Amino acid sequence: MSATIECTTADAVTWITLNRPEAMNALTWDQREEIIGILNSASADPDVRAVVITATGRGFCAGADLGGAPATGPRVPGDVARTIRLGAQRLIAAVMDCEKPVVAAVNGTAAGIGAHLAFACDLVLAAESARFIEVFARRGLVPDGGGAYLLPRLIGPQRAKELMFFGDALSSADAERLGLVNRTVPDGELRKTAQEWAARLANGPTRAIAMTKQLVNASLESDRATAFAAEATAQEINMTTADAQEGVASFKERRDPTYRGR
Amino acid sequence: MSATIECTTADAVTWITLNRPEAMNALTWDQREEIIGILNSASADPDVRAVVITATGRGFCAGADLGGAPATGPRVPGDVARTIRLGAQRLIAAVMDCEKPVVAAVNGTAAGIGAHLAFACDLVLAAESARFIEVFARRGLVPDGGGAYLLPRLIGPQRAKELMFFGDALSSADAERLGLVNRTVPDGELRKTAQEWAARLANGPTRAIAMTKQLVNASLESDRATAFAAEATAQEINMTTADAQEGVASFKERRDPTYRGR
Amino acid sequence: MSATIECTTADAVTWITLNRPEAMNALTWDQREEIIGILNSASADPDVRAVVITATGRGFCAGADLGGAPATGPRVPGDVARTIRLGAQRLIAAVMDCEKPVVAAVNGTAAGIGAHLAFACDLVLAAESARFIEVFARRGLVPDGGGAYLLPRLIGPQRAKELMFFGDALSSADAERLGLVNRTVPDGELRKTAQEWAARLANGPTRAIAMTKQLVNASLESDRATAFAAEATAQEINMTTADAQEGVASFKERRDPTYRGR
Repeated sequence: MSATIECTTADAVTWITLNRPEAMNALTWDQREEIIGILNSASADPDVRAVVITATGRGFCAGADLGGAPATGPRVPGDVARTIRLGAQRLIAAVMDCEKPVVAAVNGTAAGIGAHLAFACDLVLAAESARFIEVFARRGLVPDGGGAYLLPRLIGPQRAKELMFFGDALSSADAERLGLVNRTVPDGELRKTAQEWAARLANGPTRAIAMTKQLVNASLESDRATAFAAEATAQEINMTTADAQEGVASFKERRDPTYRGR
Repeated sequence: MSATIECTTADAVTWITLNRPEAMNALTWDQREEIIGILNSASADPDVRAVVITATGRGFCAGADLGGAPATGPRVPGDVARTIRLGAQRLIAAVMDCEKPVVAAVNGTAAGIGAHLAFACDLVLAAESARFIEVFARRGLVPDGGGAYLLPRLIGPQRAKELMFFGDALSSADAERLGLVNRTVPDGELRKTAQEWAARLANGPTRAIAMTKQLVNASLESDRATAFAAEATAQEINMTTADAQEGVASFKERRDPTYRGR
Repeated sequence: MSATIECTTADAVTWITLNRPEAMNALTWDQREEIIGILNSASADPDVRAVVITATGRGFCAGADLGGAPATGPRVPGDVARTIRLGAQRLIAAVMDCEKPVVAAVNGTAAGIGAHLAFACDLVLAAESARFIEVFARRGLVPDGGGAYLLPRLIGPQRAKELMFFGDALSSADAERLGLVNRTVPDGELRKTAQEWAARLANGPTRAIAMTKQLVNASLESDRATAFAAEATAQEINMTTADAQEGVASFKERRDPTYRGR
């Protein structure tokens, strides 16, 4: 594990912290692979029940570190598409497919793939001073890392186009108003709020939450029959877990449930 | 018809009233079947041109009545999925497929399948004191009755996850702000407003409204070509109705139309 | 070109102005064909890099001019569907498929197909006094010109149904709040703001913007794998453009980029 990605797990919450503040946490190829590895491990580890992604310094993630990009100059057709497919898209997919809920705690500027990394998370907390920038068009680029997939689902195509065509910085408050952020909090309270949210998630019925995440992520690309069948199957699986039994039992016994993530 | 589901029709509006206030209108298996039957009848009855679903007491619907659920204990694989498919999902589908517009007049707490019953309606009015609770995760359960299908369509996946992961109560005002409720009204005006909305719908071009409902419900699971073809076909059918002829004629004659639902 | 559609191009922006104020710019069959032709030409013309659609007088577009509709009286089955398919739907598709960004500058009432013409544009500016009316149900009609396709994508099915079932006028301010309008501006500033927005677009990386538009328009009818594949392909194509090279070079050289739309 490099020094520029910190990873700690406590109280069943894994914190992934981008720690290259001098580069506003522009994401290198190696860092991205580390994050993907941590998310994949979190899926399989029964002692991890929630994940938080955050960063140090003034930036959350300034986008892809161009220094680590494939060499410029002559390209073979397919190089660009392959780089996106094996790079930014794999990161976004790792967040969306992580079987534990992932909270973004956006401490500062989230630009390009940094913004999409946040929007791919299940819940997004943002510091008041954070801002979001769809910087691609300003660099002559098409948004990558799933921007055109994620944003219309969150805020509709018209508002997505405004952000993507112009690339202006969006404040946390405006992002919350539009529906890109669940909650904006004062800078000094971001970490505490993220801890509280993650703790609630880590004390929840982990398998039920994982399947709820999957159902919601699939919702807007499923028709009703498909979505209903997936829902019924998910509950069937869920009822085999101890947490579901505990949920029903605690309700009947009029007491608070204790979920163990099993 | 049981005493716990009141059903009255006046001025072409059918009112379905859940009337088991002592149980906060937790929905039994029998009540659900009654509601499905009423909605199916309303579709076919030319003298019913709008439907309102409301309830008595402090609750709109507290969820599924666990007393009526299949016996606990050993299960055969498939029992859970089948119960959902033949139960909650059939209710939600009956609302969505009812050929008359359905207005929810949410008088109080709508929890679990009670919340989804409201969100499946075409229009949602809520009393100021009403609140909505995605209670499933608190009970160790995956949302059922189409929650993961309905909510992302109404408020996007990120906000849907927040409601579903935490299960906190959402006020009427916040539900309206997010887009889960069309209008919040003072408690004392809920019935009157529902009557006004239903009366407007019942005086509208019933077939055109039914097909508009179908087109909108299918929209987010159709591509553009499919949606456009369905729209053209719907108008073709619609132009065979007396109401469409009346609409065009009244416009040319510069008078108010009188629609008869034929 | 008729006198009732003005078309001028300056500074790489094509302005399409509906100019039949005495009819509140109700759209005739011929006008529609002219607009489609202009949009198709704009796609192919490298010297057009943005399009604005606006109108003169108090109306933006009052809907379809019934005077130009096919004769009433006996119809052959299929006539209605065909008229919609070859008429309103082709106009909406021409806006959505135009390879240059299209800005609606809604100066006044946008009703029926006039509202859908605005909502199909990539960005929507509205004068404070403008209003939007889903007038179809009031005329006994199903919305046509893609309303049931467009509105649920922009504001969700529940709010779409309210607008479509009742046909009430929606103010600019409410349209912005719901998410049907990007920005409401004082009437006297509409033209200036549209000029500013169009100028920014016309100075952007035209091909990247075109492909971003396509990706966003396809987003809500694509699953994740399809959307990701389209995104990767789009960037591959984009990187062959001079604008993308300029974007990357200007970033490395820490200077402002100059995009030429090539």
